Amino acid sequence: MSDPLWGEVFAARKRIAPFVHNTPIMTCAALDRIAGKTACFKCENLQKTGSFKFRGALNAVSSLPNAEQTRGVITHSSGNHGQALALAARLYGMRATVVMPENAPVVKREATEGYGAAVILCRPTQAAREERTERVIRKTGAVFIDSHDDGRVIAGQGTAAVELIEDAGPFDTILVPVGGGGLLAGTAIAVSHLLPNARVIGCEPFGADDAYRSLRSGERMTEFTPETIADGLRTPLGERNFEIISALVHDIVRVSEEEILAAMRFIWERMKIVIEPSSAVAVAPLLAHFPEVTGKRIGVILSGGNVDLDRFFRLLSADVAC
Amino acid sequence: MSDPLWGEVFAARKRIAPFVHNTPIMTCAALDRIAGKTACFKCENLQKTGSFKFRGALNAVSSLPNAEQTRGVITHSSGNHGQALALAARLYGMRATVVMPENAPVVKREATEGYGAAVILCRPTQAAREERTERVIRKTGAVFIDSHDDGRVIAGQGTAAVELIEDAGPFDTILVPVGGGGLLAGTAIAVSHLLPNARVIGCEPFGADDAYRSLRSGERMTEFTPETIADGLRTPLGERNFEIISALVHDIVRVSEEEILAAMRFIWERMKIVIEPSSAVAVAPLLAHFPEVTGKRIGVILSGGNVDLDRFFRLLSADVAC
Repeated sequence: MSDPLWGEVFAARKRIAPFVHNTPIMTCAALDRIAGKTACFKCENLQKTGSFKFRGALNAVSSLPNAEQTRGVITHSSGNHGQALALAARLYGMRATVVMPENAPVVKREATEGYGAAVILCRPTQAAREERTERVIRKTGAVFIDSHDDGRVIAGQGTAAVELIEDAGPFDTILVPVGGGGLLAGTAIAVSHLLPNARVIGCEPFGADDAYRSLRSGERMTEFTPETIADGLRTPLGERNFEIISALVHDIVRVSEEEILAAMRFIWERMKIVIEPSSAVAVAPLLAHFPEVTGKRIGVILSGGNVDLDRFFRLLSADVAC
Repeated sequence: MSDPLWGEVFAARKRIAPFVHNTPIMTCAALDRIAGKTACFKCENLQKTGSFKFRGALNAVSSLPNAEQTRGVITHSSGNHGQALALAARLYGMRATVVMPENAPVVKREATEGYGAAVILCRPTQAAREERTERVIRKTGAVFIDSHDDGRVIAGQGTAAVELIEDAGPFDTILVPVGGGGLLAGTAIAVSHLLPNARVIGCEPFGADDAYRSLRSGERMTEFTPETIADGLRTPLGERNFEIISALVHDIVRVSEEEILAAMRFIWERMKIVIEPSSAVAVAPLLAHFPEVTGKRIGVILSGGNVDLDRFFRLLSADVAC
């Protein structure tokens, strides 16, 4: 299974490398002391648009045949994928439309518009988002780019792990957050090809543990109500993603909201970089000595840094008050 | 004047290079658009111990003659210099004592002790700090290393600008925060030698503008009560520092507390890195279009990232509520 998929990651890398940041890889002596391991953090929070999502969106946009390019692209997103698609489309001179729930933070809406996308607001339900998106597609013929359940997007997301391994490998274990599963599936493809003996572990909040349950039961869970501050991981696991993850990922571990906040705080305070809670989900297993994190050299993908500062000041203050 | 001083910076660089991070230089397209200039940020927030202070402390410690090394080192500091001296001494196998005011944040005390220094608490006045330090020196013979008014410390601090210029220069203007004046004096020595046509501008809070007043009057101001959130810049300008800055710095600009908070927030949100308010003081003149920031290519030294997160959550939240 892994070879044609690896070919797609390899092709994605050649296609997007001129436009993405080869983001820095950071280490943290204080964290290594606590964890008793050597961890290398791939800083996708420093990627263009503030998250790894730019890789997948750019690969999807740049893979479109000419006839589709003229039709423009569309997606629905309350977060990072919308911004990523907006910038990717702008680079290729395409129109982009992003359907956003009306309760999305103003700062995200402004960022998406700042990259030149047309933003359409809708009611904050999955059904409303899909219905509104369908309506625009019928009218304009725009090409839909899903945030995760798309082979081109998955291949693009896998390029972060390729850079991590080339620049700082090898690793015994690689930790990756999992929401829709684009980053985890892409990473698993890259790692299984480049480091066949390394373990890939998905990291998920207890409050949105559909990937964990899906892998345990062997059947993809599609109905659940996520409850977690890790807003990037509330998306249900995609179909294609489930298939790849089932084949190539070694384990899924779950972390509590307290562990997420503590890990986020640790990275801000000690590494002096801003990460969003979804990124902290993949740091927590190191700090909390999860037995699944085996070996000495650990790679961690810090997926993004787009946080609503006001919201997190409140959350972290509340956390401190406990 | 500049040549022997440059010789000290050059020597410092050779001495400390094996132990300091050549910190990354970052850019920010969003900031460049607002400022209408190209800014390169030297990320000393990512330096060991979280600030540029490690450069000067390490240069001082490694310059000590053998006879003094065995006596150990001592300083008084409520902040970054204490941590920096603690780590520098540990690297050279020396004892370090740091006298800290009893109201210093617990996290700073723990960090200093974490690097192996003995921490002695005293009442939170300058007189108490000096008196307590004197007492230890009489008893142990430890060598005092001042945080800024010391040629070895100044030379060490200048190495950040050397790296900035070598890696990303040339620049028209370089912005540097000024408190005690170690970083500004060291930077001015480096810039006047390497880029004689560039302007060096010190950046200071209105609430601690002794450097501004001292340069205007031609006489060093020593008595004032600082009122600013930029805790790293509350120190009065040193004597040696005043002399170098008078000769080599082109201007001092002053920024308001609101401008400091807005700049800090901007860097956290857009560049995804954590900087302390003292660093934001050198960013604010760019964002606020100060006319003194002339030319197209601007270098900025982000001096540190050691923040008490809880305190800043409160401050930034209050700022937002206004």
